Amino acid sequence: MDKLEEVKVMRDPIHGYIRVSEKVIWDCIGTREFQRLRRIEQLGATNRVYHTAEHSRFAHSLGVYEIVRRMIEENTDISSVLNDYEKVTVMLAGLLHDIGHGPFSHAFERVSSVSHEEYTSRIIRGDSEIYGVLASYDPNLPNDVASVIEHKHPNGLLTQMISSQLDADRMDYLLRDAYFTGTSYGAYDLERVLRTIRVRDGKLVVKESGIHTIEDYIMARYHMYWQVYLHPISRSYEAIMANLFKRMEYLHEMDPDTTADYPMFTPLLEKRVLTNDELFDMDEYAFGYGFNLIRKNSGDPIMRDLADRLINRRLFDYETLYSVAKANEYYEWIRDNGYDPDYYMFIDENVAVPYRPYSHGVNAIWVLMHDDSVKELSKASPIVSAVMGTGTNDKKVFYPKELND
Amino acid sequence: MDKLEEVKVMRDPIHGYIRVSEKVIWDCIGTREFQRLRRIEQLGATNRVYHTAEHSRFAHSLGVYEIVRRMIEENTDISSVLNDYEKVTVMLAGLLHDIGHGPFSHAFERVSSVSHEEYTSRIIRGDSEIYGVLASYDPNLPNDVASVIEHKHPNGLLTQMISSQLDADRMDYLLRDAYFTGTSYGAYDLERVLRTIRVRDGKLVVKESGIHTIEDYIMARYHMYWQVYLHPISRSYEAIMANLFKRMEYLHEMDPDTTADYPMFTPLLEKRVLTNDELFDMDEYAFGYGFNLIRKNSGDPIMRDLADRLINRRLFDYETLYSVAKANEYYEWIRDNGYDPDYYMFIDENVAVPYRPYSHGVNAIWVLMHDDSVKELSKASPIVSAVMGTGTNDKKVFYPKELND
Amino acid sequence: MDKLEEVKVMRDPIHGYIRVSEKVIWDCIGTREFQRLRRIEQLGATNRVYHTAEHSRFAHSLGVYEIVRRMIEENTDISSVLNDYEKVTVMLAGLLHDIGHGPFSHAFERVSSVSHEEYTSRIIRGDSEIYGVLASYDPNLPNDVASVIEHKHPNGLLTQMISSQLDADRMDYLLRDAYFTGTSYGAYDLERVLRTIRVRDGKLVVKESGIHTIEDYIMARYHMYWQVYLHPISRSYEAIMANLFKRMEYLHEMDPDTTADYPMFTPLLEKRVLTNDELFDMDEYAFGYGFNLIRKNSGDPIMRDLADRLINRRLFDYETLYSVAKANEYYEWIRDNGYDPDYYMFIDENVAVPYRPYSHGVNAIWVLMHDDSVKELSKASPIVSAVMGTGTNDKKVFYPKELND
Amino acid sequence: MDKLEEVKVMRDPIHGYIRVSEKVIWDCIGTREFQRLRRIEQLGATNRVYHTAEHSRFAHSLGVYEIVRRMIEENTDISSVLNDYEKVTVMLAGLLHDIGHGPFSHAFERVSSVSHEEYTSRIIRGDSEIYGVLASYDPNLPNDVASVIEHKHPNGLLTQMISSQLDADRMDYLLRDAYFTGTSYGAYDLERVLRTIRVRDGKLVVKESGIHTIEDYIMARYHMYWQVYLHPISRSYEAIMANLFKRMEYLHEMDPDTTADYPMFTPLLEKRVLTNDELFDMDEYAFGYGFNLIRKNSGDPIMRDLADRLINRRLFDYETLYSVAKANEYYEWIRDNGYDPDYYMFIDENVAVPYRPYSHGVNAIWVLMHDDSVKELSKASPIVSAVMGTGTNDKKVFYPKELND
Repeated sequence: MDKLEEVKVMRDPIHGYIRVSEKVIWDCIGTREFQRLRRIEQLGATNRVYHTAEHSRFAHSLGVYEIVRRMIEENTDISSVLNDYEKVTVMLAGLLHDIGHGPFSHAFERVSSVSHEEYTSRIIRGDSEIYGVLASYDPNLPNDVASVIEHKHPNGLLTQMISSQLDADRMDYLLRDAYFTGTSYGAYDLERVLRTIRVRDGKLVVKESGIHTIEDYIMARYHMYWQVYLHPISRSYEAIMANLFKRMEYLHEMDPDTTADYPMFTPLLEKRVLTNDELFDMDEYAFGYGFNLIRKNSGDPIMRDLADRLINRRLFDYETLYSVAKANEYYEWIRDNGYDPDYYMFIDENVAVPYRPYSHGVNAIWVLMHDDSVKELSKASPIVSAVMGTGTNDKKVFYPKELND
Repeated sequence: MDKLEEVKVMRDPIHGYIRVSEKVIWDCIGTREFQRLRRIEQLGATNRVYHTAEHSRFAHSLGVYEIVRRMIEENTDISSVLNDYEKVTVMLAGLLHDIGHGPFSHAFERVSSVSHEEYTSRIIRGDSEIYGVLASYDPNLPNDVASVIEHKHPNGLLTQMISSQLDADRMDYLLRDAYFTGTSYGAYDLERVLRTIRVRDGKLVVKESGIHTIEDYIMARYHMYWQVYLHPISRSYEAIMANLFKRMEYLHEMDPDTTADYPMFTPLLEKRVLTNDELFDMDEYAFGYGFNLIRKNSGDPIMRDLADRLINRRLFDYETLYSVAKANEYYEWIRDNGYDPDYYMFIDENVAVPYRPYSHGVNAIWVLMHDDSVKELSKASPIVSAVMGTGTNDKKVFYPKELND
Repeated sequence: MDKLEEVKVMRDPIHGYIRVSEKVIWDCIGTREFQRLRRIEQLGATNRVYHTAEHSRFAHSLGVYEIVRRMIEENTDISSVLNDYEKVTVMLAGLLHDIGHGPFSHAFERVSSVSHEEYTSRIIRGDSEIYGVLASYDPNLPNDVASVIEHKHPNGLLTQMISSQLDADRMDYLLRDAYFTGTSYGAYDLERVLRTIRVRDGKLVVKESGIHTIEDYIMARYHMYWQVYLHPISRSYEAIMANLFKRMEYLHEMDPDTTADYPMFTPLLEKRVLTNDELFDMDEYAFGYGFNLIRKNSGDPIMRDLADRLINRRLFDYETLYSVAKANEYYEWIRDNGYDPDYYMFIDENVAVPYRPYSHGVNAIWVLMHDDSVKELSKASPIVSAVMGTGTNDKKVFYPKELND
Repeated sequence: MDKLEEVKVMRDPIHGYIRVSEKVIWDCIGTREFQRLRRIEQLGATNRVYHTAEHSRFAHSLGVYEIVRRMIEENTDISSVLNDYEKVTVMLAGLLHDIGHGPFSHAFERVSSVSHEEYTSRIIRGDSEIYGVLASYDPNLPNDVASVIEHKHPNGLLTQMISSQLDADRMDYLLRDAYFTGTSYGAYDLERVLRTIRVRDGKLVVKESGIHTIEDYIMARYHMYWQVYLHPISRSYEAIMANLFKRMEYLHEMDPDTTADYPMFTPLLEKRVLTNDELFDMDEYAFGYGFNLIRKNSGDPIMRDLADRLINRRLFDYETLYSVAKANEYYEWIRDNGYDPDYYMFIDENVAVPYRPYSHGVNAIWVLMHDDSVKELSKASPIVSAVMGTGTNDKKVFYPKELND
């Protein structure tokens, strides 16, 4: 692969600098599909509760690339088992793994007929500037990069580096999301993790001496779930957005003309796979502008009201649902107060577990013991073994705040 | 003024928490005009060079409020000369001082017929949720808050706290912009500045023992100008935007129908003062969605191309203009290569000086000497005296990168 | 109690500033016993592995005081149940809780006939500048402050604030030790912990909504144990010191003249309770100077060699002892290679558990549930319940590195 | 030179890790002379005002080494003009440049007949473990390393890297001292400085585009002088120490027996060059233990009192001396109040200038202009030109605080 004449750097608060010396990486960063990630926020609605969580998937994707690059250049175990082509392949896979995301990922996927992973594959495999850049370096590169992301690449090590329970993706987002929310929950010792990684039998493993560092990383992720990713205030925002789309779909099905003034949503309402060009247009700008149009102009009062709640942050209140019967009570209470529960009630259930030990595959975390055997993490760490069965379940009902007044 | 039942807090990476105990402050934060600031970035195009500079004026405005609050609650000199009404007034002025901004402030003001300060006054003084909130607490409050921002309030101390060379506005943005760009240039000792402030003859002054801290703050701001605020890459982005608006205005003047498909820009093209509702709609979403529409649909190739450059970050290159004659050479070079220099050339000149000693008014920085006299800063600090005449002038010409190939 | 004319501040990297407004606090900080804490390192031998862990108990004691002060001034639940005298009492208890420590606490306590807690009580209760300061404010103050530290004060809340599993002591040292070692393990969300504390039935409790923050704090502490506090390299240093004292005691018992040249150690060798003046002289300077004297001058080759190892960091190597039989093998191996195992072998066993649920007393952590009931933490948190039985046991043997060559 | 089998790392809060791959570097770190730097504080008495400034020259020396290593490994201009032997030479020079320091450097040099630079040369050039390590790798290495530190090496570039106005020494201590004091004054953009360095005509230069970064670095240093290094409270401590030594010298000259009980000071009192072994014993432990002995046992009341002030931080008060006549008034005032001004008065004058442009030599900072010419910094930066003549002079008189009561 061609090298750049001099290493390009981009300042980054998490890594100091993002460093690029491969020309194909630099060219990918310059494509329209990658630049689009500037217009997709990393944490969707989270900034409605942590007001500084306004960072984009663009920054995160660069961060994942940077961690993969460091694994490859600084860890002699990894650098010695990969050839130059594989190194570029996995750096690209790290850089591009989120390329298929839409705005507000959860809400987007609820209405989309296709997952963001599927869109990622489609963009890398054809009809895009990214495809053009990759193929011009090597005709096999698009397929090889995509197959790493799809967990289909013959060398499982590459997939493990960018998509497992100890991958560059998580390693970056924990630190990044902690920094931009201003919380400390995601902090863990990245430098030490990178130093304790080894390769055994084609698998990433961590040295037993680093096991406490991994425990800390696992708990960091678990706490970020409850403190940040599953915060009820951002779930409230997403609940309203889900209900707005539900209403829009209902109206569109009744009469497509009713939603014709909001063309940015049409491809979604038509329930089909988007073309790459259509996905390109699905960004925060389109959603935000569309919600504001609906707020001002829609003839449907429910549409208008829900869009107003999104734009002006008039969020739903919420309660934890401790029993099933309670859900019905809420339904009747909302209805009896004059709101249509189909669009003014939302039940959201989340489970987060600290760690899942998969018996097979690349996803588990493996530990290199002092006797040179390899154990799955929960077999080596009493702490992880203890917590892995303890996932917390959280079920909440969301409804208009006015009902509490 | 009514207090909240319990202090509300919002996590913030710069201040730890933003703390609100006054009900009127909390209500203002909840208004649609203040929530809109989430949709206006603090640093406009800067994130095209510092990719993590994606923070909003919402966060900054909360930060300014928080610094004013701390001045009032922690500094006994200030707290003892202000009554409760004045305290709330100046906290509100800090919170609301940026409420009239549009997206990409410089670019916006170039096309707008009115300054953001004027819009700020209009929003606070009437026809807005903010006006309603303020007036419901006290009918004089809208006028009093606005007059602090307008430098017309009889108590100059209030204005000095939010708008002078040592004000809560600068104090917050230097730290915040440093944090979100990931650079260190804006770092200075906020805690010590807050501790060395005193009030003499109705003016904010700083104790002589804190003079080195103030010198450091002044230089921090100066360096942020050259390293961040005036970085040529963000100026390149703004140059393209300015040229796009120039083209749009030209076409709109020829025939308003040519721009009718981009209604989000119409009020600007009509060269009139926007209503508060029209300004409300002028956010990053509207601009970003509009640019993308132009990119895809405009019948004018110049419009299409310039919009494509904005959306896909195909920026202009630049050179420093060391002589006037050079500008003409660039003009001819661009024209001779088939580009219309009216829309493919941009000359941008900036001057930044470390400090301006105003002989009158509240804007200067005043020092309380050990003999209890008060001196203007440049009279008390040899460093500031030396640098204040040294502002650097930077004049650059911007043009399509392709011309260099 | 008398207030200072203006709040005194001391810059601190963990808390920004330490703020003192009570005259009795300021006077205590100025006493010789408190100033002595500058000469006692917080982490003993840890800086032989984390080279920047050179901070003193002076800084930590100020930090504990500052957290107690914030609990009292910022948490309305706490401030409303304590009177002014109790507030000063508990701030003093936080400030003075470590006043009886000697250098290298573990090693010191191994040779000392009395615990550091006992010395702390003796200093506060009499024959010291601290006693004089306290008694001059209120004759009961020495007794009241000491009884909080001794867990004997009638108001258990005061003790809980400075000595429990969720006390100002741990809250400070986790953050401080993380900062000065340059690691991230000790990071947790202090601001949120302080905000979720409540008082119920005279006990500190934390709100259920803060339970994940507490889990994070508990794991932070657990990981600091294994990564920092029990790091085998500092245990190696302490093993050598323990053996040096063992040798010194043996020689002293045979003939006190052999150790007479090292008068700084004499009171310890005589196996008696030190006077406050003798303890005052027991600081890092005395130990370090004494070890260097022994290294140069001792007639006993074992003394000379062990002291040389301490001064010049020629540390023992170590192995984990997985079985009891192994210990005997090491004993014989060391002896057969010409070293006296009594002074050249050391077995050190440590157990660290994440959390201990005491059924009685103030030590446990209590949670205020959403139904207003109070539960012990492990009953409220599945994570804590899971990990509390998982403490890791680590047993190591230490021996001269040369034996491995 | 031999490489280590695997890169050794030492955790460091400023650089993340100190990384060592050369065996000779690792061996030097293990020598007794280098380990002694753990017992010499970096900032002497500064921790009497910034209580967390307790870091050692050991940590700083590792930091200087690390910056030199990065210059050599990451900057292609530098790496391409140095051969492997020169690279090791300059890394060693950075590591060892402070090896000759005594405790409280200023105070130590006042009583010592020889500068710390002279002692550094002596240690590297012979009769030390360091000499043995260096010579065993290459017989020329001791001389070559020493000559870089002495500014006598034929390749001026090496000296410039470790001893000039833009050297690894300053680059490390500004960041380190800022971190450990908890202030922000020393912050500057190390990453960017390292990236803008080039080599022209055998000299280190910085690119014109990095000039604002260098201005920021220069001002950072200037502000550290006034806020930290020349803080009057640490100067007060050093004033007392200077007077104590003055008294000790006076008594020793009268009758050496009077100081015989404090053998740790004898070599200094005899006014001769110390042997390497004597210097080895001159550490903080010796000074601190010695001061405490004097405090308790000295027959001279002035000695006892001054030592008590050091141990128990009963510091002198101070005033700025605005005129010469004032000094005499203070002298008489102190004398008339019963104190001997020879030992209870101290006048200390300091000048700090932001930058000194040397017309010759390696010390100046050089700028590589856009036209490829090289200018001395003050010729290229209006800011530096303006401030370089503005050094502040600060003259203070110190005297017992009791006189103010």
